[in-house]
Amino acid sequence: MLKPYGDRVVIELVQDAPTTRGGIVLPDSAKEKPVRGKVVAVGQGKTLDNGTRVPVEVKEGDVVVFAKYGGTTLEIEGTEYTILNERDILAIVE
Amino acid sequence: MLKPYGDRVVIELVQDAPTTRGGIVLPDSAKEKPVRGKVVAVGQGKTLDNGTRVPVEVKEGDVVVFAKYGGTTLEIEGTEYTILNERDILAIVE
Amino acid sequence: MLKPYGDRVVIELVQDAPTTRGGIVLPDSAKEKPVRGKVVAVGQGKTLDNGTRVPVEVKEGDVVVFAKYGGTTLEIEGTEYTILNERDILAIVE
Amino acid sequence: MLKPYGDRVVIELVQDAPTTRGGIVLPDSAKEKPVRGKVVAVGQGKTLDNGTRVPVEVKEGDVVVFAKYGGTTLEIEGTEYTILNERDILAIVE
Amino acid sequence: MLKPYGDRVVIELVQDAPTTRGGIVLPDSAKEKPVRGKVVAVGQGKTLDNGTRVPVEVKEGDVVVFAKYGGTTLEIEGTEYTILNERDILAIVE
Amino acid sequence: MLKPYGDRVVIELVQDAPTTRGGIVLPDSAKEKPVRGKVVAVGQGKTLDNGTRVPVEVKEGDVVVFAKYGGTTLEIEGTEYTILNERDILAIVE
Amino acid sequence: MLKPYGDRVVIELVQDAPTTRGGIVLPDSAKEKPVRGKVVAVGQGKTLDNGTRVPVEVKEGDVVVFAKYGGTTLEIEGTEYTILNERDILAIVE
Repeated sequence: MLKPYGDRVVIELVQDAPTTRGGIVLPDSAKEKPVRGKVVAVGQGKTLDNGTRVPVEVKEGDVVVFAKYGGTTLEIEGTEYTILNERDILAIVE
Repeated sequence: MLKPYGDRVVIELVQDAPTTRGGIVLPDSAKEKPVRGKVVAVGQGKTLDNGTRVPVEVKEGDVVVFAKYGGTTLEIEGTEYTILNERDILAIVE
Repeated sequence: MLKPYGDRVVIELVQDAPTTRGGIVLPDSAKEKPVRGKVVAVGQGKTLDNGTRVPVEVKEGDVVVFAKYGGTTLEIEGTEYTILNERDILAIVE
Repeated sequence: MLKPYGDRVVIELVQDAPTTRGGIVLPDSAKEKPVRGKVVAVGQGKTLDNGTRVPVEVKEGDVVVFAKYGGTTLEIEGTEYTILNERDILAIVE
Repeated sequence: MLKPYGDRVVIELVQDAPTTRGGIVLPDSAKEKPVRGKVVAVGQGKTLDNGTRVPVEVKEGDVVVFAKYGGTTLEIEGTEYTILNERDILAIVE
Repeated sequence: MLKPYGDRVVIELVQDAPTTRGGIVLPDSAKEKPVRGKVVAVGQGKTLDNGTRVPVEVKEGDVVVFAKYGGTTLEIEGTEYTILNERDILAIVE
Repeated sequence: MLKPYGDRVVIELVQDAPTTRGGIVLPDSAKEKPVRGKVVAVGQGKTLDNGTRVPVEVKEGDVVVFAKYGGTTLEIEGTEYTILNERDILAIVE
C-alpha cells in the first residue's frame, strides 16, 4: 500500500451517477471539476517553520470533495488512486 | 452536508433581481463580478505558522458579497453551493 | 450596509471636476489612474502570522486617494461603492 | 495635502537640466530611468509580521533618486507629485 | 557515491513491467507521470528559518513514488540515478 | 554624493582590458555578464522581519564582481555609477 | 582570488571524458545538464530571518554535481570558474 508523504493523502475515487437525486451533482461546466473520493491513507502532516508538525485534518474513511486537477493518479492492483496535497481538499461530506 | 476544509466556507447563492431598488446592484461591467450568498457552513479556520488556528470570521447565516470566480460550484439535492476560501469574501451585508 | 472583510474598506467615490483649481488633478496619462473617495466602512484589519490583528489605518470619513484597478465596484440604492484592500490606498487627503 | 499610507512617501520632482555639470545626469538609455525628487511627506512606515512598525528611512526635505516607474503620479494645485513605495527609493542625494 | 545536498535524495529507478498485476500501473495519460524508485542516499535535510534542521522523512532502501519531472538524472558506472528534492516524493510504497 | 537606501550599494565601474593577463576575463558569451566595480558607498542594510538590521557585507573600497543587469546606472560629474542591491553582488575580489 | 558573497560558492569545472567508465556520465538529453566541479571558495553563508547565519554546507576541495544553468561563469588567469548559489548544488561526490 502507499503511505503518503508529508501533508499528502491517498484517495480512492467514489463513482456515483452524476444525476443521482440526493447525491452531489458535479456540473461539467465547473471551472475546476470537483470530484468525490474516500480517504484511504494520510501522511504525517506538514512541518511548520517553527519545526512542529500539523497533523492532516482528514482521517481514513472520510469522504471528501476535491479539485481533481490538483492530484496525481496511479493504479494499484486494478484500483485507481489519487495522491493529493491536503490543501486541495475542499470539503468533507458528512 | 458538506463541512468545509480549513479556512473555506460553503455558501448558498442568493438570487435577487439585479435592479431591485434597495438591493445591491451588481453591474455586468464589473471586472470581477461580485455576488451575494448566505453562509451555510464554515471550516475550522487557517493554521498560522506558529501552530495556532484563526477561526473563520463569518458564521452560518451571514449574508456575504464575494467574487464568484474564486469559488468552486457543486449541487446537492437540487441546490447549488459554492465552496469558497474565506479570503475571497469581500464584505458582510448587515 | 456593508461591513468589509478583514483588511478591506468600503469607499464612496468623490466626483470632482478633473481640472478644478486647488483640487487634485488626475491626469489620464497616469499608468494606474488614482481616484479620490470617502471611506464609509472599515474591516477589522489583517491578522498577522503571530495571531494578533492590525487595525485598519484609515477611519470612516477619511478621504483617500487609491488606485481604482485594485477594487471591486458594486451599487447599493443608487450609490456606487468600491470595496478595496487597505494596501491599495495610496494616501489620505488632509 | 497628502499623507502617504503605510511605507509610502510623496515626492515632488526636481527639474534639472539633464546635462548640467556637477548635477546627476540620467542617461536616456538606462533600463529603468531613475529621477530626482524632494520628499514632501512620509507615511508611518511598514508593519512587520511581529506587529511593530519600521519608520520610513527618509524624512521631509530629503532629495532622493528613484525609479520613476514604481510610483503613481497626481497633480495638486498645479504641482505634480509622485506617491512612491519606500522600497523604490534607490539613494539619498547628500 | 553521491551524498545529496540539503533536503535532496538520490533515487535508483525501479524498472517494472507497466502492466504487472499487483504492481503499480502508471498510466501514460497521467499529467505528471509518477515513477517508482528506491532511495539510495538522503541529504541532511532542510534548514528551517529558526536555524534547526528537519531530517529527510525517507531513509535508504525505501521505495517511493515520485513525479519524475522534478528530478535531475545522471549515470554512475552504468546505473541511472535521479537526484530529487524531498518535497517531490508523493508516497512511500509499503 | 549618493547614500544608498536600505541594502543597496553604489559602485563605480572598473574599466580593465578584457584580455589582460592576470585580470578577470569576462567572456561575452556569459548569460549574465558579470562586471567588476569598486564599492563607493553602502546603505544601512536590510531590516529583518524581527526588526533588527543586517549590515551590508561589503565596505567602501571593496572591489566586487556583480551581474550588471541587476543595477541602475546614473552619472555624477562625469563618472558613471551603478546602484545595486547587495544580493546582486556575486563575489569580492581579494 | 574571489571570495563568494553570502551563500555563494566558487567552483572550478572538472573536465572528464563523458564516457569514462567509473566516472559520472552526464547524458546530453538531461533537461538540466548537471556538471561536476571542485569547490575552490565558499561564502559566509545565508542570513536567516532571525539574524543568525547558516554556514555553507560544502567546503573547499569538495567535488560537487550541480546544474550549470544556475551559475555565472568568469575566467581568472586562464581558468574558468563558476559562481554558484549553494542551493543549486545537487550532491557531493564522495
